[in-house]
Amino acid sequence: MTKKIAIAGLGTVGSHVLNMLQHMQHDNIEIVAISARTKNKDRLCDISNMAFYDNPLRMLQEKKPDILVELIGGSDGIVEDIWHHALDNNINIITANKAILAEKGKSLIKKARDNHVMIAYEAAVAGAIPIIKILREALSGTYVNGISGILNGTCNYILSQMRLYKQDFVTALKQAQNAGYAESDPTFDIDGIDAAHKLLLLTAITFGEFLTIDDIECDGIRHIDLVDIIVAENLGYRIKLIGSAQRSHHGIKLRISPYLVPKDHALYHIENAINAVVIDGKESGPISITGYGAGGSETASSVIADIVNIALGNTHIDILGSRLQPKIDQKNLPDFNNLSYEYYIRVTCYDKIGVMAQLAQIFQQHHISIKSMTQYGDEKDKPVDLEFITHELDHNNDLKQAIDVMNNCDIVLKPVILLPIL
Amino acid sequence: MTKKIAIAGLGTVGSHVLNMLQHMQHDNIEIVAISARTKNKDRLCDISNMAFYDNPLRMLQEKKPDILVELIGGSDGIVEDIWHHALDNNINIITANKAILAEKGKSLIKKARDNHVMIAYEAAVAGAIPIIKILREALSGTYVNGISGILNGTCNYILSQMRLYKQDFVTALKQAQNAGYAESDPTFDIDGIDAAHKLLLLTAITFGEFLTIDDIECDGIRHIDLVDIIVAENLGYRIKLIGSAQRSHHGIKLRISPYLVPKDHALYHIENAINAVVIDGKESGPISITGYGAGGSETASSVIADIVNIALGNTHIDILGSRLQPKIDQKNLPDFNNLSYEYYIRVTCYDKIGVMAQLAQIFQQHHISIKSMTQYGDEKDKPVDLEFITHELDHNNDLKQAIDVMNNCDIVLKPVILLPIL
Repeated sequence: MTKKIAIAGLGTVGSHVLNMLQHMQHDNIEIVAISARTKNKDRLCDISNMAFYDNPLRMLQEKKPDILVELIGGSDGIVEDIWHHALDNNINIITANKAILAEKGKSLIKKARDNHVMIAYEAAVAGAIPIIKILREALSGTYVNGISGILNGTCNYILSQMRLYKQDFVTALKQAQNAGYAESDPTFDIDGIDAAHKLLLLTAITFGEFLTIDDIECDGIRHIDLVDIIVAENLGYRIKLIGSAQRSHHGIKLRISPYLVPKDHALYHIENAINAVVIDGKESGPISITGYGAGGSETASSVIADIVNIALGNTHIDILGSRLQPKIDQKNLPDFNNLSYEYYIRVTCYDKIGVMAQLAQIFQQHHISIKSMTQYGDEKDKPVDLEFITHELDHNNDLKQAIDVMNNCDIVLKPVILLPIL
Repeated sequence: MTKKIAIAGLGTVGSHVLNMLQHMQHDNIEIVAISARTKNKDRLCDISNMAFYDNPLRMLQEKKPDILVELIGGSDGIVEDIWHHALDNNINIITANKAILAEKGKSLIKKARDNHVMIAYEAAVAGAIPIIKILREALSGTYVNGISGILNGTCNYILSQMRLYKQDFVTALKQAQNAGYAESDPTFDIDGIDAAHKLLLLTAITFGEFLTIDDIECDGIRHIDLVDIIVAENLGYRIKLIGSAQRSHHGIKLRISPYLVPKDHALYHIENAINAVVIDGKESGPISITGYGAGGSETASSVIADIVNIALGNTHIDILGSRLQPKIDQKNLPDFNNLSYEYYIRVTCYDKIGVMAQLAQIFQQHHISIKSMTQYGDEKDKPVDLEFITHELDHNNDLKQAIDVMNNCDIVLKPVILLPIL
């Protein structure tokens, strides 16, 4: 039976979806209407013979499709309206919209389940990488201890540029903007919010819990200096912005943070705008998957896979997957993840006699054991950067207090940088 | 509705499947019977209360399950019988059996389609890695130019051991046998047949064509010496046994061969018994996935994902997937892959004046342009190994003829080794 599809949003991804559908053979898909803000615009594909709406809600009301492909983005206004209209009227939704799912997913998914409507969102996380399908269906028999990944291509691109071309943060950000990887207001990417949205979705599938952005310890990359990249590289590490969700004694621990990643880790080699996710499955062992995290045709290929799957009638999948769970009280499960880390600490201060002693005393008072120290910069009377690597520590109050004390110290000239080592 | 499952074969994978199902919550799966050669044997799981058969065919006839989980292996005898019985009697099959699918898949899948029976085989290729689901469902909207991967963990383990511990092939093979990675008769693994079976399955899904092992240019790893590993490493490469399927002007080109893999390639870092597959999708861009290629719980986790999926009723998937195809004559498609390679050539000969001139003449006569030459071993009057790297060449007759001429030359003491560079 042919499924009637309506596409809302003809930006980069929407145009690619339409273009790919127009150039491929499919027997059971019919595009009944499209919607965008303006009809006349240079696009990849010819839309002159298609039913066009500038109001996507009216499109749904008049055309009554089986599937809405929502590629507008955002979490309120007309977008929220068409989601509710679709869920109320038995219209399956396929989307790349991570914001609405991260912010309002809990209630939207409840409504979808109540009304027996499918929501498919492969394109919402990590572009071309089929991470949703893998977590939702392919690992349904595996108990997942944790997931971690490079979820934001913009940040990874900036960090790669800094390392490869010895650029400072501002130069690398400009480069990313020129290359089309970063928006003119880059906040959403570089402060980790985009990665946080994706992490919330992955967490919902993996652990069955919809948490909020306030549950994430979230740290972006704007405070990373070239000196951090260089010192890390000299010590055998690369700095990557990593999102991680891990089971711990205290529940699910979510974190977005730049980490120092060692050479033998799967994420060490992931460069530029590539995304990667590592799944730590108890039965399956670690599984890692890598590919383009953004881009028109790349993201569209995930949208089309969802279209084909729903058009074929494979909708007997819970929206968050159907993971088999061990028949034991999860609260009594051992903590599979050691959540203590070594840390990298960079302190910028004047190069004076007594500075080291003062810092050493602060570390000692807070029970922080130091494994190594390097110094970067040695021009006379200029500030120097002191980089410390700690022994393994819980991310406990002692460490935070020590950093607070240093930040209030006369000899310390810039906020102290604290990064965990993976 | 509860699905009745019968499991045939309780070896390593079968025992893990049973054990995992016994320890997990599932509402719609009931194990109605199990079958193995002997009932009384130390196993992971308690089978004392289960309906046991030593004849799997009788199990199917008497218990009439909805799903047969076939984990016996092999492609004839009782295994072939139960496949046909299942396909004739509307029993879905879930299996890890790559041999029967590679050898008889074409007719078995035709019968399954005719009888509307599902065959699921995630566990048949690359253990825990959900490569079947990815190719069959997640990339249904992407035109795939080619796939390549490390498909045999045994060979990868042996090659890693040789490199890491400077072992010769025989020592590393023994080590693999002691560690349980290689069989006492290792032919199937080290001559590339196991990888070939997996490649045939991946090819069937990716390109919709069931080819045979005779269509594969297949070369194993038994002729790789430690000197090859060392010289390759000095030049910045690692040697990996890679299976690849690529579109070319001449149709689908299948190859199993040890390759020299450069540092920046995704497969360079894959060590020991890990498998990895790289999918070269036109719209999606490259996607690579890595994980354990064998092991009891790892492979069982793929079997269980198939069980959950079929039990939920998601059987509207063609057994080889439903890939959307471009609306153009495929024969007229450009050749996306440059199938010419640089080559590594190792010639073992006595260290005499005139040897180089003689070899150089042979290369010249066959139009083979050499990029670099190294010499390994320089004990007086002992054989030396000369390693040549060619410029890019088609894998054409010239090269094969040159190797033939060298192999018939008095000065050449061992068969010449020829490996493509990825």
